[in-house]
Amino acid sequence: MLPNIKNPDDLRQLDNKSLIKLAAEIRDEMISTVSRTGGHLAPNLGVVELTIALHKMFNSPRDRFVFDVGHQSYVHKLLTGRQEAFETLRQYRGLSGFPKFQESPHDAFNTGHSSTSISAATGIALARDQQKKDYHVVAVIGDGALTGGMAYESLNHAGHLGTNLIVILNDNEMSIASNVGAMSGYLSRMRSDPMYYKGKEDIENLLKRLPSVGSRVLKVMERVKDSLKYLVVPGMLFEELGFTYLGPVDGHNFTSLKSVLSSAKSIKGPVLVHVLTTKGKGYQPAEENPDQFHGIGPFNIESGKTVKTKGAPSYTQVFSDALRDIARENDKVIAVTAAMPGGTGIDAFGQEFPDRTYDVGIAEQHAVTMSAGLAAGGYKPVVAIYSTFLQRAYDQVLHDVALQKLPVVFALDRAGIVGDDGETHQGLFDFAYLRNIPGLTIMAPKDENELRHMLYTAVEHNEPISLRYPRGSGIGVTMEGDLQQLPIGRGEVLRDGTDITIVAIGNMVHPSLEAAEKLALKGVSAAVINARFVKPLDEDLILKQIDKTGKVVTVEEHVLAGGFGSAVLEMLAKHSINADVSNIAVPDEFVQQGSQSMMRAKYGLDAPGISRTVVERFFPGINLRQVRQRG
Amino acid sequence: MLPNIKNPDDLRQLDNKSLIKLAAEIRDEMISTVSRTGGHLAPNLGVVELTIALHKMFNSPRDRFVFDVGHQSYVHKLLTGRQEAFETLRQYRGLSGFPKFQESPHDAFNTGHSSTSISAATGIALARDQQKKDYHVVAVIGDGALTGGMAYESLNHAGHLGTNLIVILNDNEMSIASNVGAMSGYLSRMRSDPMYYKGKEDIENLLKRLPSVGSRVLKVMERVKDSLKYLVVPGMLFEELGFTYLGPVDGHNFTSLKSVLSSAKSIKGPVLVHVLTTKGKGYQPAEENPDQFHGIGPFNIESGKTVKTKGAPSYTQVFSDALRDIARENDKVIAVTAAMPGGTGIDAFGQEFPDRTYDVGIAEQHAVTMSAGLAAGGYKPVVAIYSTFLQRAYDQVLHDVALQKLPVVFALDRAGIVGDDGETHQGLFDFAYLRNIPGLTIMAPKDENELRHMLYTAVEHNEPISLRYPRGSGIGVTMEGDLQQLPIGRGEVLRDGTDITIVAIGNMVHPSLEAAEKLALKGVSAAVINARFVKPLDEDLILKQIDKTGKVVTVEEHVLAGGFGSAVLEMLAKHSINADVSNIAVPDEFVQQGSQSMMRAKYGLDAPGISRTVVERFFPGINLRQVRQRG
Repeated sequence: MLPNIKNPDDLRQLDNKSLIKLAAEIRDEMISTVSRTGGHLAPNLGVVELTIALHKMFNSPRDRFVFDVGHQSYVHKLLTGRQEAFETLRQYRGLSGFPKFQESPHDAFNTGHSSTSISAATGIALARDQQKKDYHVVAVIGDGALTGGMAYESLNHAGHLGTNLIVILNDNEMSIASNVGAMSGYLSRMRSDPMYYKGKEDIENLLKRLPSVGSRVLKVMERVKDSLKYLVVPGMLFEELGFTYLGPVDGHNFTSLKSVLSSAKSIKGPVLVHVLTTKGKGYQPAEENPDQFHGIGPFNIESGKTVKTKGAPSYTQVFSDALRDIARENDKVIAVTAAMPGGTGIDAFGQEFPDRTYDVGIAEQHAVTMSAGLAAGGYKPVVAIYSTFLQRAYDQVLHDVALQKLPVVFALDRAGIVGDDGETHQGLFDFAYLRNIPGLTIMAPKDENELRHMLYTAVEHNEPISLRYPRGSGIGVTMEGDLQQLPIGRGEVLRDGTDITIVAIGNMVHPSLEAAEKLALKGVSAAVINARFVKPLDEDLILKQIDKTGKVVTVEEHVLAGGFGSAVLEMLAKHSINADVSNIAVPDEFVQQGSQSMMRAKYGLDAPGISRTVVERFFPGINLRQVRQRG
Repeated sequence: MLPNIKNPDDLRQLDNKSLIKLAAEIRDEMISTVSRTGGHLAPNLGVVELTIALHKMFNSPRDRFVFDVGHQSYVHKLLTGRQEAFETLRQYRGLSGFPKFQESPHDAFNTGHSSTSISAATGIALARDQQKKDYHVVAVIGDGALTGGMAYESLNHAGHLGTNLIVILNDNEMSIASNVGAMSGYLSRMRSDPMYYKGKEDIENLLKRLPSVGSRVLKVMERVKDSLKYLVVPGMLFEELGFTYLGPVDGHNFTSLKSVLSSAKSIKGPVLVHVLTTKGKGYQPAEENPDQFHGIGPFNIESGKTVKTKGAPSYTQVFSDALRDIARENDKVIAVTAAMPGGTGIDAFGQEFPDRTYDVGIAEQHAVTMSAGLAAGGYKPVVAIYSTFLQRAYDQVLHDVALQKLPVVFALDRAGIVGDDGETHQGLFDFAYLRNIPGLTIMAPKDENELRHMLYTAVEHNEPISLRYPRGSGIGVTMEGDLQQLPIGRGEVLRDGTDITIVAIGNMVHPSLEAAEKLALKGVSAAVINARFVKPLDEDLILKQIDKTGKVVTVEEHVLAGGFGSAVLEMLAKHSINADVSNIAVPDEFVQQGSQSMMRAKYGLDAPGISRTVVERFFPGINLRQVRQRG
């Protein structure tokens, strides 16, 4: 059936039986494709029926869907003319793993980071109102994304505005389903049936006539004590925010879904539809391990086992191990994560030190300022956040941590080019957004061994400090036994040279060393400095080398504007040094999806690229091809 | 009495009659001082009794107070040994208008931006728990600050943690007081009286026995429809978030305050105390015009009139006028403000175009992403936010606006040095945090007339674009009649010269011209370029000038790291130009409070400073004093 669905209109004629068959085919297609490409499987398996029902009951692209975070948009893509492209999922120039208006008019708004959908949908709804049009605007948001402050800011404002807006709460925690009592079901039926919904007065009369509200309140309060999930349980909370609450409904039952969505369409003002789904639904390994199958690499469909690639431990793993080593000796160390214990390696820390670990939910702003509070109270919080997500807390790093010089450690995972997740998740801005913050120390290790020493250095340092490291495996260097404190603001010369100085930071150090070897074969003597610190720069070391070579190349996996190379230029201007400088970095564009190695090669951020840039810029007389062959 | 209060311990013996007398003296002191220094008068007049009661019932600095935003901390300062310094309020090296741990151990955490207090207090409380200590941690937050997403992130997390934490909700909207019904008062008395509070079971039994909860819910729902203020009315919402709700109580009645605070101290877990206060209380002009007296310059105590200084219109005023001019011709223009209609000049726009104006509350993140939605829907949102507050929405500018190239206009008011508000409010980072965002166009006008043309240019531009302008008056230039579209990425040479090129941006252009005149008197021929665009830079124009002069000075009212000068350096490196460059900018430190002119002089950001830097760096042989005398 799936091949016959060229666009959502083709769903119109299908009855429930056909829809159920279609759902099964979509699941097969997604399992098959993601087993090869990797991707966000479990979230998409959970929203198959919901997405089909949305497309059956609404009229996209006239009606607008905004998928929060967006990694649950695969079903939507399959229903909107992207079946043939689906095998290119998350690959270079292939289909994005997130909604993208560039791909299809059915993608009303691009997403990637959490908790933006209600804000965007509110804006789209207001634009509609301005034009006096009447299409529907639908935000689809998970229960996790509701912990982000933006979600409240937007619920708050949308409830106040009272404009027509439908928020689908995709609640995929089983614990919620069993918590919901008979009273909620009763209210839900009452309110979601248009026969009963006749406007404000009727609801008010209805509520007046319900003697059991008190006991509902009681149930709510009991749940409140035990779980963050209280937020999604009581419709009351949404009602108080100005929304009409519908639900909860079974998100895998077409009859229920069609009924509640039909009601939602007919109600004036903002509506919240509470839909209960099962993450991983329909594929046993994913249902049993929804966390593992949330975002997953290629796997074997029969066994559900991922295709393991042997190699060096990941930077995340090394960070996780080192943090526990440090914490065993230093009881002031506290770990903080914003809903990413697995991704950041804080999960293992939490198992060993449950009382010294805080997962605050998807709430980076709170994570940072709470850590400032912990530091003010004498502790050493280590905030482990992806580079791209710390963007959410830039103001808090500046205003709550740096202004008070509080000793918070920022451990930025997934810094640099992240690969398949693409442009919304690139960690390419952190040097720039952190470097302008006065007094903040900024580090990046050259490899996984140096990461350990930098983390130790950060914890020992008594002021705000950050370190960033890439996604994926380390380069397989030997781990030195004892953790050492690196002197703040001191780099190291890894290779001497007389013709040119390559000043590299972080994971660009080793490729720079390789590039220097290639250059040596061609008779170019390149010095290589591991800068270690973006701030403070090791001015003496760099100046001394430049004094020898005149020519300088900076290398960083980061955008050019305001980054590490920029810091070196500022330093040279300060010292009135007129060196001939070239900055290797990502230019002023968003980096698309594609494997890390492919995208690094594209931007010249590998040994061949670095040596090529050096030759082209400074030694154009040398035959580059010859260098390549020898290298 | 006030002079006898050397620290909070001196309050212990005072009875209510004495406290009332003390409150009157504190009001007199604040009115008298702020009438001379300017400051946040109305918020402080509103919290006199509350602050006294807090210090009487708690034991600072053992117990910790965190004041949200912090501009309501004057009474706290007067009670904690800072009476003598109070006359230096908001002046250079004087008392800060915000809490500062550097001033006193009674200031547990520095604040300035909104909605941070519950996060910080949670962190401090967790540090206390780690140390197995038992002091109280108290966050004092206004109802406005509750609209910020961080406040929810922290309520959400603190409610989940269940640790002891007291949040004082300082609710100063008169509408709230009159909205609160008898039922709330009943619940409040029940819950805040320790006789009734015997733990969870008792509360639950109590609720079971309350048949009138239904009608309370009804009342809540009625209010919800009309006002953003629903958030602070229903204790239910806080109860659902895991807090025990106490209140509302009259925030000007010592008996009520002492009673409710005593209850709050005895309750386990997080508590929210709802306190009703009157902004401006006790000074008639401030009670009648609390908005005007929120933050105010020097004023006459008898008349309540501010001391007017005649001069050029403010940048804000010019922006406001121009935006309305543009909107009269272009019905796609929408104005968005985050709770600062007055400060940003959006108030006048809202009066003329009420249907095209959105005030989203203190919710910068939502403001930006909602604007992205409006732009996706075909509109031209102009988001007017202070430079320092847009820091809150850095991720949204990057991820929701720039990634989709949506035509949102960011109008950054209070950019540069802001003066008396000091370090938490400096607008010194926007070039750096915006410049790394791919594809974003960044402008700064040289004066208030150019601001008008830039705003018009921004609205006509079909991609993300920003402009920033300073706090305070323009420089009094003539306004040219018709609004003109400036060519994107084109600067202008304002003065030709052969010895050195001064490339200035924004409000540093005119001082650079003056500096060039000073230099001319000394025989130095300085060209002056008004860059207009930080991004894209006018590379041709700048390179052509530099080709003539070799030497270059960049000037910006912004930090050095990653700023405008840094952009010029990157451009020169890209073109392999080895010019001799000096960057005049703010160094890597937080700029303290002090008048704008004084602080600009301190950092060499005025005509004498610029000419001095040029001479010292490039023409050290010239006698500087002689230049100054002639200039």
